Amino acid sequence: MKGNLISIDDLERSDIEDFLSKASQAEKMSKAEASKILRGHILSTIFLEPSTRTRLSFDAAMKRLGGSTIDLAAEVSSVEKGENIADTSAVVAGYSDICVIRSPYEGTARMVAENTDVPVINGGDGANQHPTQTLLDLYTIKKEFGHIDGLKIGMLGDLKYGRTVHSLAEALDHYDVDIRLISPEETKMPEHIVEKIGIEEEKTELEIEDLDVLYATRIQKERFPDKQEYERVKGEFILNKQRVKEMKKGSILMHPLPRVGEIKPEVDKLPQARYFEQSCNGVPTRMGIILELLGVDKDA
Amino acid sequence: MKGNLISIDDLERSDIEDFLSKASQAEKMSKAEASKILRGHILSTIFLEPSTRTRLSFDAAMKRLGGSTIDLAAEVSSVEKGENIADTSAVVAGYSDICVIRSPYEGTARMVAENTDVPVINGGDGANQHPTQTLLDLYTIKKEFGHIDGLKIGMLGDLKYGRTVHSLAEALDHYDVDIRLISPEETKMPEHIVEKIGIEEEKTELEIEDLDVLYATRIQKERFPDKQEYERVKGEFILNKQRVKEMKKGSILMHPLPRVGEIKPEVDKLPQARYFEQSCNGVPTRMGIILELLGVDKDA
Amino acid sequence: MKGNLISIDDLERSDIEDFLSKASQAEKMSKAEASKILRGHILSTIFLEPSTRTRLSFDAAMKRLGGSTIDLAAEVSSVEKGENIADTSAVVAGYSDICVIRSPYEGTARMVAENTDVPVINGGDGANQHPTQTLLDLYTIKKEFGHIDGLKIGMLGDLKYGRTVHSLAEALDHYDVDIRLISPEETKMPEHIVEKIGIEEEKTELEIEDLDVLYATRIQKERFPDKQEYERVKGEFILNKQRVKEMKKGSILMHPLPRVGEIKPEVDKLPQARYFEQSCNGVPTRMGIILELLGVDKDA
Repeated sequence: MKGNLISIDDLERSDIEDFLSKASQAEKMSKAEASKILRGHILSTIFLEPSTRTRLSFDAAMKRLGGSTIDLAAEVSSVEKGENIADTSAVVAGYSDICVIRSPYEGTARMVAENTDVPVINGGDGANQHPTQTLLDLYTIKKEFGHIDGLKIGMLGDLKYGRTVHSLAEALDHYDVDIRLISPEETKMPEHIVEKIGIEEEKTELEIEDLDVLYATRIQKERFPDKQEYERVKGEFILNKQRVKEMKKGSILMHPLPRVGEIKPEVDKLPQARYFEQSCNGVPTRMGIILELLGVDKDA
Repeated sequence: MKGNLISIDDLERSDIEDFLSKASQAEKMSKAEASKILRGHILSTIFLEPSTRTRLSFDAAMKRLGGSTIDLAAEVSSVEKGENIADTSAVVAGYSDICVIRSPYEGTARMVAENTDVPVINGGDGANQHPTQTLLDLYTIKKEFGHIDGLKIGMLGDLKYGRTVHSLAEALDHYDVDIRLISPEETKMPEHIVEKIGIEEEKTELEIEDLDVLYATRIQKERFPDKQEYERVKGEFILNKQRVKEMKKGSILMHPLPRVGEIKPEVDKLPQARYFEQSCNGVPTRMGIILELLGVDKDA
Repeated sequence: MKGNLISIDDLERSDIEDFLSKASQAEKMSKAEASKILRGHILSTIFLEPSTRTRLSFDAAMKRLGGSTIDLAAEVSSVEKGENIADTSAVVAGYSDICVIRSPYEGTARMVAENTDVPVINGGDGANQHPTQTLLDLYTIKKEFGHIDGLKIGMLGDLKYGRTVHSLAEALDHYDVDIRLISPEETKMPEHIVEKIGIEEEKTELEIEDLDVLYATRIQKERFPDKQEYERVKGEFILNKQRVKEMKKGSILMHPLPRVGEIKPEVDKLPQARYFEQSCNGVPTRMGIILELLGVDKDA
């Protein structure tokens, strides 16, 4: 059976470790070495909504591996004008060896996977799943600390609607970590996730001094019916130089980007800031995902 | 003289056979082998209107051959804002070794060919010509049966305005085939084509049991002044499981895609269904076209 | 320190000569030879406004060198919707080895260069600078005559607002050339540039017989409050067959393109016409720029 990467829920800890290990192999290769692996191979990128980081880091990952990409983005409007997504993606995937699809609609990736013979990667389907983001987040943590078990990890911001933190929390459930949720009352993590994972710490204030990892996300204005309340909350959770300096030595601050004010630019040069490196890690992580799903073993 | 591929009318049977033969060679190559042929070569794709299948299969074809593409699509709007198509295409073609152009205007490909030194491929110019579609259709038939002569081929749907079936009929005139035209009265094949090719069978009912190939196309609502008539006609010609099962053993059902209801998804798994393979054949066919026009002989 | 190419003002004559020399090396390479140099390397193209020639010739240049490109263009709208250009360009540049940015805003390229570790090329920032255009103009002149010193060079058209002619004039100040400015009163070269460079000849009539190089640019309607005056001026400066034939033997006519009427198509076949070759020179020139900034020496 061909492999797909549709949802973090589908993965065991050993699957996650396999992806991270391939990513690490990919990052250690020289450019010349990597560029020999997938010559003549094609990744199709079907993006039914734009996504700078996801699309371009997949594009870069495939090209670092010596392969090429074909991209449906330019024709998205014609797809939207009523062409059948199932047909189009089957055709485009059929031109390629592996396919990444992003969609505003939940379940699109799984549907595409059922309609094609090539491995399919979910590049984000609406509010549902974005497993390659979660893998790059885990890769960033593991690269920094050498391990994930034993860490104290805080999640900050919109924990109610944030797809990224939901998936990360579920993935971390495979590891022996302490999770602290930090958010205003209005955007707390849904109870069913808290219970499923057995998270014990929930804070409505910015307690970050003892964390190894602080994973910040956007607090979105539109979630707050009361705009004054939004302004109060936002001010309280903004990460500025002074607050981040309180984090302990060796700790890191992550963010999936784009940020819109929740981390001040003055933080960028602090030793904790790791969000640009995290974003760059998208390339080796996605190289690893492609290699794993194509069953390529560079040592073989 | 450099070669171009502008119109099926320009080709002799031997030219068609050369393209099909190169396509077959291309399909048989391993990825590693193919990816060495056109290293450092560039195909420019100038698409003045979107076309998922044509653009992406050319893109994939060039990349399978180890070459690269540059694509004007992103700037189309600025071209439309009054920049001279002749100048722009001469410049862009000049950056490349071979050029494919698609345009909503008849004659654009020939004009571009006259303004540049590199081989030019017509990727469709309005209602006029789409020769690479015709070649992939012929390639699909020949790949299936090993030959084209002697087959009984039905064409179904909008035969009045359908560029695809006009070109296919003209190309098949080089072969010894029986053609049956099947369409409602409202969308019959133009008389001058029927006479030129000497087609003897025209039906207004779905008689398909004895065909080797059924080539279906869309029946477009806007062709019918009377919408009730459209609904009646559409229902009568829709290909569902029951109707396609009546086709004889070894026969195939083709369609240029996209479909919009004229073939039911339930047909996709029947042994006759060949439209997704047909679409995939766009890649080796276009590899063959590129190789032929660049004068590359892999055995040389 | 990493090298960037932000402004012609930053360059000494020896820097310019280094770029031109690398461009000449690049042009002399065979396709096979060139395509081995940058395998596995990535150029990111961040175009916040469309630019057919600049983007596609960089794209072609990188691919001729065996490298790949990743392009932000498709997502520009989302960048415009308020995402931080500094963050986005830092992320995208971080996926790549070298970055070219085009922006409608002055100073963007320099800002991006300060936010990333990879070399940054200014692909045009508003009315400010477009140094790669200037280098390809110089490359075209040097390729034609073997030298730049000693030539008589005319600049024609909108010399008041034309970024291209301002930069070219400043670059030519490093050389021993005679410059003649030819424009209507309404669009004369700004006094501070004329004085800085010490240009002595300014004409309001089309005197071109004794020039080695005539560099024509568009005269833009919107610069003229009086439309009748515009029509008079335009007619007087249009380059038709008769006027260009007056140019001396061995002289050349250049234009950055696109043209909109100021050079008649009938001129294209005259021996002076060099604007399409000039445009094609964008590829080797940009190959040279990439090689120089990446510190690649093919002889090393």
